[in-house]
Amino acid sequence: MSVSERIQKSMAEGSWIRRMFEEGAIMKQRYGEENVFDLSLGNPIIEPPPEFRRELKRLAEQPLPGMHRYMSNAGYDETRAAIASQLSLETDIKFTSNDIVMTCGAAGALNVVLKAILNQGDEVIIFAPYFAEYVHYIDNHYGVARIIPTDEQFAPRLDALENAINEKTRAVVINSPNNPSGAVYSKERLHGLGELLRKKETQYGTKILLISDEAYRKIIYDGLKYPFPLHHHTQSLIATSHSKDLALPGERIGYIAIHPECHQREELVNGFIHLNRTLGFVNASALMQHLVRHLQAVTVSVAEYQQKRDFLYEHLIEMGYSLVKPQGAFYIFPKSPLEDDVAFVRELQQLKVLTVPGRGFGTPGYFRIAYCVEDRVLEGSLAGLRQAAQKFGPG
Amino acid sequence: MSVSERIQKSMAEGSWIRRMFEEGAIMKQRYGEENVFDLSLGNPIIEPPPEFRRELKRLAEQPLPGMHRYMSNAGYDETRAAIASQLSLETDIKFTSNDIVMTCGAAGALNVVLKAILNQGDEVIIFAPYFAEYVHYIDNHYGVARIIPTDEQFAPRLDALENAINEKTRAVVINSPNNPSGAVYSKERLHGLGELLRKKETQYGTKILLISDEAYRKIIYDGLKYPFPLHHHTQSLIATSHSKDLALPGERIGYIAIHPECHQREELVNGFIHLNRTLGFVNASALMQHLVRHLQAVTVSVAEYQQKRDFLYEHLIEMGYSLVKPQGAFYIFPKSPLEDDVAFVRELQQLKVLTVPGRGFGTPGYFRIAYCVEDRVLEGSLAGLRQAAQKFGPG
Repeated sequence: MSVSERIQKSMAEGSWIRRMFEEGAIMKQRYGEENVFDLSLGNPIIEPPPEFRRELKRLAEQPLPGMHRYMSNAGYDETRAAIASQLSLETDIKFTSNDIVMTCGAAGALNVVLKAILNQGDEVIIFAPYFAEYVHYIDNHYGVARIIPTDEQFAPRLDALENAINEKTRAVVINSPNNPSGAVYSKERLHGLGELLRKKETQYGTKILLISDEAYRKIIYDGLKYPFPLHHHTQSLIATSHSKDLALPGERIGYIAIHPECHQREELVNGFIHLNRTLGFVNASALMQHLVRHLQAVTVSVAEYQQKRDFLYEHLIEMGYSLVKPQGAFYIFPKSPLEDDVAFVRELQQLKVLTVPGRGFGTPGYFRIAYCVEDRVLEGSLAGLRQAAQKFGPG
Repeated sequence: MSVSERIQKSMAEGSWIRRMFEEGAIMKQRYGEENVFDLSLGNPIIEPPPEFRRELKRLAEQPLPGMHRYMSNAGYDETRAAIASQLSLETDIKFTSNDIVMTCGAAGALNVVLKAILNQGDEVIIFAPYFAEYVHYIDNHYGVARIIPTDEQFAPRLDALENAINEKTRAVVINSPNNPSGAVYSKERLHGLGELLRKKETQYGTKILLISDEAYRKIIYDGLKYPFPLHHHTQSLIATSHSKDLALPGERIGYIAIHPECHQREELVNGFIHLNRTLGFVNASALMQHLVRHLQAVTVSVAEYQQKRDFLYEHLIEMGYSLVKPQGAFYIFPKSPLEDDVAFVRELQQLKVLTVPGRGFGTPGYFRIAYCVEDRVLEGSLAGLRQAAQKFGPG
């Protein structure tokens, strides 16, 4: 008895993020917590906002009858309505609760959606650098990931997309603000992307679902107004969570919001609800659904993240690193001064700074820094980052 | 764009449980909540025990730093250790925290385990009547469900099992106390089952994992001591949750406990942890993990369920229904007085009593009553049950 060949292979490839995180945990034991500067994991240090604390206290003191029971696999109507209402406000698209399915985080949302639409061998397009888990999610349901490059600003390359789409293309997954690059996709690029998808839909007589992973939507900087991908293609949906905007990653609370004008919207939603159940998620946490219902207009302090970004960005530039200034999320994705990004990350590790090699995101030659950490960790990491830059020159 | 053929098929077959539940919701709107007697869903009416309420209040008032963040995909060490310790006490098997993986309910546990061990086309044996979701869980990961019958007491038929096992058999899933029959498998039958598995392992040079779904383990009656399946086969694990024993079905908090002597235990556990992440569960709710850590010795009032069972059982016998007295869980599974169990359930529905046809559990000719409801619902259902019995005679 062992794990299946398929899973053995998947495990051997491993997750660079988790690997660095776990090696870091060992280093912290050896060298002391304060001497290891762990920038490997997007596990935000910020606590949930006070409004969340208040709601939790209120519910704990005055529990609603049956508030931990099963509900419809789609989630509570009230929570779905609250999300639809806030999303309508933000997007000017008219969502109703029927467009919302509560999920076990964005990860649950993506798995439910992919399982719903993929026949074995169907293709899903993702842009490198990408959130490494996408490859697993597509593979879980026997789909095929087609990986295409972004441009030097980490925006989707439409020429490459045009070449990659074929009659088996069922979906394109985008992630703006992006993990790991911090890029926020512009309205213009999204417009071009939507036009291209429709052109290809006509060419092949297919529908191509634009899946917009918006886990970092609320974490954007410099007063930027978020360009919603759903404005540029109606065959689309949002897969997202409150892991980042309410700092609840361990609670697995997220949702799918399908474009109200999506073709076969109702059939798709019924599929999502069915799969929420049959994939074993069943429903998003009942308690969390009660809580986030009242917190749709609330977000953690983005200013705090922006300060961290500014601090790190300025120092990295000054050290000579080559990088694009992130507009959102809490990652920065510099060029690796060494061509071999794993070798460079290992060098940083020797200097007690933990980061993740770009190949973990399908983009060798870069490395990812997660700056959702305490200031003392960021400050402490500078010496190692500087020393490595001096040793190998700019990237 | 529509849902895949595979999922369309799965949806068309539907879930009888959910279908009755949802038709019931419509009937309640039409006839008034108090006039429809819904015995269709295992959604316990009992609230979580006071100890849970106290813990939740304590944590809400004095939150731990970072208590909603990501943790290891296996779950918190402290929670896993608490579970291992309580399980060791109950089973006399020496579990450690390394044998425990926290999951998104028993459903998450089963999906993680099946995904870990199944190559496409591998077989998993289940006994009818079975929890209907098993078929989906096996199919999710491209396994093949082999369904074999139980005896007249709803205990696994070992002769049928012997015939069903072949070189592709990777696992046998059992569920004691059983949903839908309420049967608790005897030590003797489990002993025979274990011996048979080892005989077949030797014959085929394979390992066969005994997966014990123990979601209802704590809900047993008449002072019965629970016969642990893990005592009879070391190639085994428990997949369970706190949905029933702590009345938290909406919170999706459960775990895998692998037998410490399981062959390739460590590789399997690493696979489970990996798949917890890559299937999109990521981890069981952080808050719930903090809570159940202190509640391993706590259970809802089983006496309350036993009273409901006794009440219903005695009335059904008196009405002439043919049935086996359940020893656990909160279901009763009488013979359908009509050969066509769907027709009989539809008759009951006309009489405002909602149940689920046996074919929803792979066993036509029976119907399931879930008695985890308020007494007034049980009492109210008697008239309809009696009328149907009188109309069609005993089953």
